[in-house]
Amino acid sequence: MTSVPAAASSPNALTKLLGTRLPIVQAGMVWVSGGKLAAAASNAGVLGLVGGGSMKPDLLKHHLEKARALTSTPSGAPMPFGINLPLLYSGIDEQVKIALDFGVRIFFTSAGSPKKLTGFLKGHGCTVVHVTSSPDLAKKCEDAGCDALVAEGFEAGGHNGRDEITTLVLIPQVVDAVKIPVIAAGGIADGRAIAAAMALGAAGVQIGTRFAATQESSAHANFKNAMIQSKADSTFLMMKQIVPVRLLKNQFYEEIKALEARCAPAEEIMAHLGKGRAKSGMLDGDLANGELEIGQICSAVRDIPSCAELVARLEKEYSAAVAQLRAKL
Amino acid sequence: MTSVPAAASSPNALTKLLGTRLPIVQAGMVWVSGGKLAAAASNAGVLGLVGGGSMKPDLLKHHLEKARALTSTPSGAPMPFGINLPLLYSGIDEQVKIALDFGVRIFFTSAGSPKKLTGFLKGHGCTVVHVTSSPDLAKKCEDAGCDALVAEGFEAGGHNGRDEITTLVLIPQVVDAVKIPVIAAGGIADGRAIAAAMALGAAGVQIGTRFAATQESSAHANFKNAMIQSKADSTFLMMKQIVPVRLLKNQFYEEIKALEARCAPAEEIMAHLGKGRAKSGMLDGDLANGELEIGQICSAVRDIPSCAELVARLEKEYSAAVAQLRAKL
Repeated sequence: MTSVPAAASSPNALTKLLGTRLPIVQAGMVWVSGGKLAAAASNAGVLGLVGGGSMKPDLLKHHLEKARALTSTPSGAPMPFGINLPLLYSGIDEQVKIALDFGVRIFFTSAGSPKKLTGFLKGHGCTVVHVTSSPDLAKKCEDAGCDALVAEGFEAGGHNGRDEITTLVLIPQVVDAVKIPVIAAGGIADGRAIAAAMALGAAGVQIGTRFAATQESSAHANFKNAMIQSKADSTFLMMKQIVPVRLLKNQFYEEIKALEARCAPAEEIMAHLGKGRAKSGMLDGDLANGELEIGQICSAVRDIPSCAELVARLEKEYSAAVAQLRAKL
Repeated sequence: MTSVPAAASSPNALTKLLGTRLPIVQAGMVWVSGGKLAAAASNAGVLGLVGGGSMKPDLLKHHLEKARALTSTPSGAPMPFGINLPLLYSGIDEQVKIALDFGVRIFFTSAGSPKKLTGFLKGHGCTVVHVTSSPDLAKKCEDAGCDALVAEGFEAGGHNGRDEITTLVLIPQVVDAVKIPVIAAGGIADGRAIAAAMALGAAGVQIGTRFAATQESSAHANFKNAMIQSKADSTFLMMKQIVPVRLLKNQFYEEIKALEARCAPAEEIMAHLGKGRAKSGMLDGDLANGELEIGQICSAVRDIPSCAELVARLEKEYSAAVAQLRAKL
């Protein structure tokens, strides 16, 4: 019930661990966070992450090289950005080898067991952070040797936990369950929400959707415009029979909704999903037929700033949110 | 994008409006918040609410009399507690008359249009607060003349909005949409969460589940014990075909889940639900067959304090949560 985090889980511990000015992580997102976004985020003082999940080996190398060039990091030096790797893809071992050879030393892993790669990566001198959606799995991350963890709530975009635990409910319980720094994710797009997450005991935050709607994001302009026009009820968590995923409502969403309303079997939904839907929507801009993975907080996105502008705004909003809090209830 | 609330929506404005020491409301909950709980909450410095929804006229009078006696309020004086009335029940007009005649001057209305009663109650000198689950409806509350509103997120117990907007996403957007004080609800059970809600711009909070698990709550001891043993994944939002409701998982939940998994028609689910399930579970303690309406944050309930003990704890936790926040990100 105590609300004072241990020093080991303070914002200072997190910025030291990540080598950043601010306790903020730009989330790794398929088709959205390439080398350009990761570099811009890192240059703005937060940890940029290349979203490796959707990248074949050559594309991954291309994005790592781009991020290195845009951050002016000498070849061979440790990279000032990290990589996010969902463990469910088959090419994971080759992705890890490429990233290690390239000098990446910060790995965010997700969608699998924290036991799978943590020990191996720690053996290579890396910082390892795993993404979790429940207090029980958070404890497993700590037990597996992770340096920190991301606790991501129901409001987050894309793939999501089955227990539907919201960020507000999740963070304090994860903070109470572990001693490593907890990075709050899901529903965070302004400085007020950062202050809220840190009031709950988080050491810092991971921000996805708000960075997807920046100049440097690879999201198609159509997708960015759809975020600007979205409302609080514009996303929904779907496809729970397969893997729950939060989507922007569009024609494809309506089709899946109709299938689910008549209890269509998982095979039929997967067949309708097919291949390449996320790429066609998020990268190529097919707003009708694409799968538009995005967080519920997209309704707070009303412009497309640069990463530098966004981060400056977050800092200002955070200070204002804290300043207006009274010391006693 | 600014995070500084206007003075009209500050905690001071809310405590003045409600006549309380603290910017906290004890939620009106069917079968849980009778006169005993409302009086204990009001005596502890927060606004106690009699949950009138499930009460026939004689029972409502009984609970109002009990609350008056336990708060030592003279007959004829305005009551230091309020009443929550869901607008969907057929006996609403008689409930309103009883409460007005009794001297209740603070009405929280829910589950209906804010236009229905706000003008009438304001005409009788009452303070009116409506419960909403979306920014659009929040604006309608303001337009209808409400003095304040409760914005309640997806994690809240019992009846819930269809858009599944979480408290973290909902509050800042509601705060930006209206000028009246916003009371945050859903997922709030400790002082950290109160600080988080106020960082988001809320003027105060409404707390349900945590007050359901106090000595003075009418919830059956079996139900309170079930809360103590619950985990973060112990509740789920069900019956979306009818009215979405968040339940503690039990045998009844499993039965509804099985019906929903095979797309049973709404009529079949309603027939299985039958009458009196909430009473049998929450008041009479039938943990297997009862409908146990509770918030996701029940997993943070680990004891059954008195209201006075709980409120003292909330104050202490709030101050600690704010004190550990750094001024600059």
